[in-house]
Amino acid sequence: MHLALLGCGLMGGSFALAALRSGLVTKVTGYSVPQHSAEHFLQQGVIHQMATSAAAAVQKADVVLIATPVAAIPVVLQQIAPALPQHCLIMDVGSTKRSVQRAAKKILGAHARFFVPTHPIAGKEQAGHAEPRATLYQDKTVVLCPDADTDSHALALAHQLWQHAGARTTELSAAAHDRGLAAVSHLPHLVAFAYMDALLNQPDHTALLDLGGPGFRDFSRIAGCEASIWRDILIDNQDEVLPLLNAVRQSLDHLEALITQSQPDVLEPVLQRASQARIHWKKEKNNV
Amino acid sequence: MHLALLGCGLMGGSFALAALRSGLVTKVTGYSVPQHSAEHFLQQGVIHQMATSAAAAVQKADVVLIATPVAAIPVVLQQIAPALPQHCLIMDVGSTKRSVQRAAKKILGAHARFFVPTHPIAGKEQAGHAEPRATLYQDKTVVLCPDADTDSHALALAHQLWQHAGARTTELSAAAHDRGLAAVSHLPHLVAFAYMDALLNQPDHTALLDLGGPGFRDFSRIAGCEASIWRDILIDNQDEVLPLLNAVRQSLDHLEALITQSQPDVLEPVLQRASQARIHWKKEKNNV
Repeated sequence: MHLALLGCGLMGGSFALAALRSGLVTKVTGYSVPQHSAEHFLQQGVIHQMATSAAAAVQKADVVLIATPVAAIPVVLQQIAPALPQHCLIMDVGSTKRSVQRAAKKILGAHARFFVPTHPIAGKEQAGHAEPRATLYQDKTVVLCPDADTDSHALALAHQLWQHAGARTTELSAAAHDRGLAAVSHLPHLVAFAYMDALLNQPDHTALLDLGGPGFRDFSRIAGCEASIWRDILIDNQDEVLPLLNAVRQSLDHLEALITQSQPDVLEPVLQRASQARIHWKKEKNNV
Repeated sequence: MHLALLGCGLMGGSFALAALRSGLVTKVTGYSVPQHSAEHFLQQGVIHQMATSAAAAVQKADVVLIATPVAAIPVVLQQIAPALPQHCLIMDVGSTKRSVQRAAKKILGAHARFFVPTHPIAGKEQAGHAEPRATLYQDKTVVLCPDADTDSHALALAHQLWQHAGARTTELSAAAHDRGLAAVSHLPHLVAFAYMDALLNQPDHTALLDLGGPGFRDFSRIAGCEASIWRDILIDNQDEVLPLLNAVRQSLDHLEALITQSQPDVLEPVLQRASQARIHWKKEKNNV
């Protein structure tokens, strides 16, 4: 099969390498803004040829992977819509799925059946210039978000491609995906960013940060993520993230009241429930 | 020297083993509520004899380590005050220092000069039954909180004991310690507990938690800590923790406003500042 890779970063490049290694894909055409990313991939053998536009890249493709930031996906869909071959599978790798699915239905029309919204949960702390590798998706979870209209052959191919990249595939509705990821990823990122922001607003922040140990390290790790990516995710998925943020505010208010009223006997079981749930999660998910 | 170990858990036992290994301490008398912890330490050779009370344990001691939960320290100080040998160094290992220092001055009177409030920053996720080890404090930071009245020989001995256990010692005022630890440890714990509490309040929490990946794992790790310990710390250090919590609330309000107003160009630099600071911290603290 012929893969069109739109966006030449870690996520897309690693998919291309894995697809080539599996033998399912034998030719990769790449396109990227900025152009030097595609040139770099060409030199490295991640792609076999560079296209001059997104539309040109997809013209002879069997599979299209849109591996750009979330906010760029609708633009890319508009560029490729007139040029897509019949039955060509299209996937993205964005962290939110409802807005992408909506955009695909609107922009691709009848071809939207062949679009499978995809989220490989294999992020990294800092975006930028990490080199792609065929093993990035090994043992990672990839969430596919088909709906009732999705073409069954396209969906089966999507499963096959990611499974051959070493990933576990799972299906969720786009709505369930966006709520779930809001809870376990987007909200923690928002809170971690706010926590770092609050520390930096303290006049003595240098002395404070100097005391950070393993607890600080782990709790704040995701605040080191790429701002431009998380700006887009938080705005895009705000309908799911912000109600959960309010639930955190209510829990904080409740805990604060118990602390200020010095009610250790009421405070302890609340902390205990949280602690037990986290310990239970760790036991269930010892592979994470 | 003769060490009296009051409280037979991971922190105290590991100090005793390290002190014995260094040769600075040759005899350890232990006392613990519950008694079976001391019995276990006796069987394991962590302590050489069990005392029948805290007062009896310290009678011939050169060094006393109070390694109980924070809330128990004033009670222990009251029990040992009448029995302390002259010039006997006393340390604790609690996570908050101002309240302990206040209690020592009030309860120990003239002997408070020989009390050095101590915080070895070598916690662990779950308290309970981890076995003590002589290397627990290797390469860890131990904060000593003397004040102008502290006896210089006692302070020098405190440094020596922890350094011989492999730790880096540093001095901070009890106030600076409590503010710093509130910022980088107590506040993150409170927020992590509240985050888990908020998730558990969602009717679909099982499905949500099932999606947790590496970001969730690290952000929520400290919510798995022992509830009874953190109940005490949060109540004890509320004067430092709660103002910082308000700063987090303000940052969350600010970020939420930028998200709902879809102001990516204003949101990004705020996230960017947080991200850069976290990346910078990681570079500075690559040993944490």
